[in-house]
Amino acid sequence: MRFLPYTDNGRPALAIVTGDQAIDLKALDQSLPHELEDVAAGGPAMLATIKAALAKGGAKSVPAKGLVARYPVSATHKVICVGLNYALHAKEGGNEIPTYPAFFLRVRDSMTGPGEPMVRPTVSDKFDYEAELMIVIGTGGRHIPEASALDHVFGYTCFNDGSVRDFQRKSSQWTPGKNFDRTGGVGPVIVTPDELPPGAHGLKIASRLNGQTMQSSNTNDMIFSAAKAVSLCSEFTTLRPGDMIAMGTPEGVGYARKPPVFMKPGDTIEIEIEGIGVLSNPVVAEG
Amino acid sequence: MRFLPYTDNGRPALAIVTGDQAIDLKALDQSLPHELEDVAAGGPAMLATIKAALAKGGAKSVPAKGLVARYPVSATHKVICVGLNYALHAKEGGNEIPTYPAFFLRVRDSMTGPGEPMVRPTVSDKFDYEAELMIVIGTGGRHIPEASALDHVFGYTCFNDGSVRDFQRKSSQWTPGKNFDRTGGVGPVIVTPDELPPGAHGLKIASRLNGQTMQSSNTNDMIFSAAKAVSLCSEFTTLRPGDMIAMGTPEGVGYARKPPVFMKPGDTIEIEIEGIGVLSNPVVAEG
Repeated sequence: MRFLPYTDNGRPALAIVTGDQAIDLKALDQSLPHELEDVAAGGPAMLATIKAALAKGGAKSVPAKGLVARYPVSATHKVICVGLNYALHAKEGGNEIPTYPAFFLRVRDSMTGPGEPMVRPTVSDKFDYEAELMIVIGTGGRHIPEASALDHVFGYTCFNDGSVRDFQRKSSQWTPGKNFDRTGGVGPVIVTPDELPPGAHGLKIASRLNGQTMQSSNTNDMIFSAAKAVSLCSEFTTLRPGDMIAMGTPEGVGYARKPPVFMKPGDTIEIEIEGIGVLSNPVVAEG
Repeated sequence: MRFLPYTDNGRPALAIVTGDQAIDLKALDQSLPHELEDVAAGGPAMLATIKAALAKGGAKSVPAKGLVARYPVSATHKVICVGLNYALHAKEGGNEIPTYPAFFLRVRDSMTGPGEPMVRPTVSDKFDYEAELMIVIGTGGRHIPEASALDHVFGYTCFNDGSVRDFQRKSSQWTPGKNFDRTGGVGPVIVTPDELPPGAHGLKIASRLNGQTMQSSNTNDMIFSAAKAVSLCSEFTTLRPGDMIAMGTPEGVGYARKPPVFMKPGDTIEIEIEGIGVLSNPVVAEG
């Protein structure tokens, strides 16, 4: 299934997308959730309920394009990111192939929804894009074995791990460069694992800046798999329904290009992952 | 003023502590907040209202010791930490004196309240203590100049930046070692700046493991001041009332001792800061 968190007259809503049509979950059945994390928390039983309601038919569908997509989860959810997870990207930055993921965190204020502006800060012009696969956790847990980790994935979506490169390198810790307000886009559609290869492996992933392809790779270049990342995160933190894990970016980022390319106000940046969709954000100047 | 967030029959409550007595804010005036962040958001006007209500007198006071302290803010709040902020601690770890703070983040799940267990994980026995001054933000903002940054501090409290050292060093990013579930204690009393030297500078800070002093330093050894940390954080993120900034730990941490000392289940770890108070947590085994 393909879920689209959207805003309906200012209220959070959730739709199922089939082809170019969308059906609101509440229109399908008033008792269904309108928050993605509540669907995610419901596990396979919730998905079966939704499928059964869809099969009954009768609910009004609308063109998916007409819906205003929103940030998919509430503010309490963790965003854990895997740095340097594509072999060729590690190489372009002059890094060794890691043996343990360089996990970092993003706060909610650093994130933004699909279609919403990604904000180029006033204090830097080194605003870079990063096409990434984003995992959304379904059933939570701690100490999840790698062998069963994919059972804990609710779905996959697109992420743009917008990075302010000079601030990322001001100390050993990347925190500031990865946490400028409204620099990371995520969404719009969250695709359940049954529609994709196991672990979302083998999918084309690309970024396009004003229509020009900047990154073009495949999730099979990932060093740590989705299952491995889920398992390793759960070694230190309790994963909860709606928590997100970003799977790193392939080669072709702006700072490593010769000459470097950075995002500017007025640009449009798109992330596309095969079988998932396209995340598009305009770039605006802060303030 | 000295604020004590506590739990009253399972409900979040907030008291003012004077000497060894505590007065509940709702008992003082039913219209006053029971969440610290709402007091923090209220700014000087809120503090003046509380002071006036206190001056009227008549509210019942109870022994502060009888109250069950709790984690001071809600789950949406950022915890931003400054690494390596004491000159002698940087030295004991073999690090250069930094020119920009090594900021890292902690998720809410990694935190715990005063008196509550700090959890030594199953996957590591390298569980270390770190005595720290914690800033609680009052008036929020972005791009706060250093010169006026202390106007944005609601108060100061104690923090134990519990760290799982082997996981802290598994990659260049310290995230896992700083984010094990329930490893960071904070509280209990939040002291407003008027009761302390500017920027909480020049205060004795110590940790005691089972009564034995492990760290004994002074906040005047901090490389980046409270004002500088607030200003630099606000360069990348919007600070909000109740957000917290941890100011780093002095020398004497467990891993740098010869032989190393780590916390074990059954231990009691205390953090004391002059003029603020004592944070005490039992150490328990996970699970």
